[in-house]
Amino acid sequence: MDKKLIGVDLGGTTIKFAILTENGDIQQKWSVETNILDEGSHIVPDIVASINHHLDLYKMDKDQFIGIGMGTPGTVDVEKGTVVGAYNLNWKTLQNVKAEIEAGTGIKFAVDNDANSAALGESWKGAGDNAKEVVFVTLGTGVGGGVVTDGKLVHGMGAGGEIGHINVHPGGFECTCGNKGCLETYASATGVVRVARAMAEEFAGKSHLKEAVDNGEEVTSKLVFDLAKDGDKLADMVVDRVCYYLGLAAANLGSTLNPQYIVIGGGVSAAGRFLLDRVDKYFQEFAFPTVRTSTTLKLAELGNDAGVIGAASLALQFK
Amino acid sequence: MDKKLIGVDLGGTTIKFAILTENGDIQQKWSVETNILDEGSHIVPDIVASINHHLDLYKMDKDQFIGIGMGTPGTVDVEKGTVVGAYNLNWKTLQNVKAEIEAGTGIKFAVDNDANSAALGESWKGAGDNAKEVVFVTLGTGVGGGVVTDGKLVHGMGAGGEIGHINVHPGGFECTCGNKGCLETYASATGVVRVARAMAEEFAGKSHLKEAVDNGEEVTSKLVFDLAKDGDKLADMVVDRVCYYLGLAAANLGSTLNPQYIVIGGGVSAAGRFLLDRVDKYFQEFAFPTVRTSTTLKLAELGNDAGVIGAASLALQFK
Repeated sequence: MDKKLIGVDLGGTTIKFAILTENGDIQQKWSVETNILDEGSHIVPDIVASINHHLDLYKMDKDQFIGIGMGTPGTVDVEKGTVVGAYNLNWKTLQNVKAEIEAGTGIKFAVDNDANSAALGESWKGAGDNAKEVVFVTLGTGVGGGVVTDGKLVHGMGAGGEIGHINVHPGGFECTCGNKGCLETYASATGVVRVARAMAEEFAGKSHLKEAVDNGEEVTSKLVFDLAKDGDKLADMVVDRVCYYLGLAAANLGSTLNPQYIVIGGGVSAAGRFLLDRVDKYFQEFAFPTVRTSTTLKLAELGNDAGVIGAASLALQFK
Repeated sequence: MDKKLIGVDLGGTTIKFAILTENGDIQQKWSVETNILDEGSHIVPDIVASINHHLDLYKMDKDQFIGIGMGTPGTVDVEKGTVVGAYNLNWKTLQNVKAEIEAGTGIKFAVDNDANSAALGESWKGAGDNAKEVVFVTLGTGVGGGVVTDGKLVHGMGAGGEIGHINVHPGGFECTCGNKGCLETYASATGVVRVARAMAEEFAGKSHLKEAVDNGEEVTSKLVFDLAKDGDKLADMVVDRVCYYLGLAAANLGSTLNPQYIVIGGGVSAAGRFLLDRVDKYFQEFAFPTVRTSTTLKLAELGNDAGVIGAASLALQFK
C-alpha cells in the first residue's frame, strides 16, 4: 500500500493539518485553534495530540506514514529541527519541535519556515506545476518568499528567500526590519495602504480613495484594488506604484535566478490578473532580455492549502 | 593512481589550459592564442590539437583523466554541450563543442559560461573556501556573475547569474542589453568611467580627475580608484557612487540567497579593500539584519586562474 504524508501549517490563530498521498493529493483535512498562552508551551503537545487523535479516528497506524512536515513562523534550524523567535506564537526561546513531535507521534518529522513551505507547495502542486526553478512571493501582512532551485529550497545561511526585504527604494518607507525601502513596505497589505495614504496627501483630483482617506474611513488593500478596477484615478496610481516595485523586484530576481516561474500569492494577490498584468508590464521593462521570455509570472493557485501541501512535501526526504 | 582534470578557459584573445588534480591543484598550465578567423571555426580543432599535443608531451594518456571542463563566452546549453552567440569568438551559429572535443580527445567534456566557471573556481579553491553557498560578481569590461547554492551553479532556464543586469537605478544609464540602469552600466570598468564623466560635468571644485576628463586625457577605472585613494574629491564621489550601487545589489542578493560569501572579482576589484570596504558600508545599510551578520563580502583570490580551475571542476561530475 502507498504510504502517506502529514502536512502541518502552524499559524498564529489556527493550526491546519492534512493527510496527503505521496503525490500531494489531500485526503483528509482538519484544523485546531492555536493556543499561544504560557509562552506557546501548549502548541507542540496540541499538535501531537491532534495527530494521534486523528490517526485513531481514521484507524491509521504510524507505520503508514513516510513522515510529518511542518511550516512555522520564526527562525528555523532545518537541520536540528528547532524554531526560535516566532513572536505570534509567543515562542521567544528555542523550541525543540522535531524531537518532541517525533517522540510524541513515532513518525519522522521535518520543519521549515512558513513562506518556504508555501513556496514548496506552489512549486509542487500549484502554479509551479512541479517545475524545478520557482520563486514564490507572498503578499500578506508582510511580504514573504521562497526560492526553489533544482527542486530544492535555497536556505543559504538560514535567511534565504527574504524577498520582502529586497530594497526597491533606498531611503523609502521605514520597515519593521529597521531598513528603509524594503519591498514589504510597498507591496504587503499594509504597504499598499501606506502608499495610498502617502499619495492621497499629494493628490488633488476627484477620488473615492482620497475621500475615504480624508474622512478617516477604513482603508484596506482590497479597497484600493477594487477602486482602481472601477477607474478611481488615485487608486490606479497607487496600484501602479505597488506594481512598479513588485515588477522591479521580480525582474531582479529573474536576472539573478532566471526561474521558470515567479509565483505571486498571499492576500494582496486576490486582485488577480489586474495585479499580475501590471506587475508583468514593469517586469518586462526591467528584466534582462532572455529572462523576459523564459521566466513567466503567475498567480498562486493553491490558496490556503499551499502551506499544508508544501509542509507535507518536506517529509518526502524520508522516503 | 589519482585521476586528473583538464580545465579550459576560452577567451577572445587567448585560450588557457591547465591540468589539475582532483583536489583542484594546478600541475601544468599553458595557453594558445585564440584564432577567431573564419567564423571561429579553428577554435575547437585548436583546443583538441593543443590538449592532445600536451598529453603527448607530458606522456599522459586519456585514461588518466576524469574529464575536461571548459568556460566559454556566449550562451551555453549545458545539457547538450553547445554554444551560440559568442561574438568575441565570431561564433554566430551553434557550435557542437562537446561532441567535437569528446570525439577529438576521447575524454569526457562539460561546458558552462565563463562567469559561471569563474564562480565555481572561486567557490571551490578561492575566496569561497569550498563553501556551498557563494555568489560571485566579476567586474570587468562588463559585470558577470554566478550563483552557487548547495555547491552547484544556478542556471534557472539558462540565464541564471546575470548579476550585471540587476537594475540598480531605473531610468539610469543605457545598457548594451537595451535596459536602463543595470549594475553593469555603473560598476564595470567602462561603467566607472561613465560615472566619472557624468559626475565631472556637474563637479565645480578642484580635482585631477575633472582636469583629466576636461583635457580629454585617457580616463580609466584604475585612474579613478588611484585618484580616489589619493584623496581626489571628485574621484572619491565617483567611487562612492559605484560602491553604493554594488552594495545595494549585494544586499539584495544577500536577502534573496543569504550566501556565506559574496565574492567580488574582475579587473575593477584590483582596487582591493578600498573598494570592498566601501561596498560593505552600503551592504550593511541595505541588507536584511540577519544577512548582514551571516553573509560576508570578500575579494576574489584566484585572479586569472579562477577560469581554468572552475572549468576543471565542471568535469568532476564524471567521477
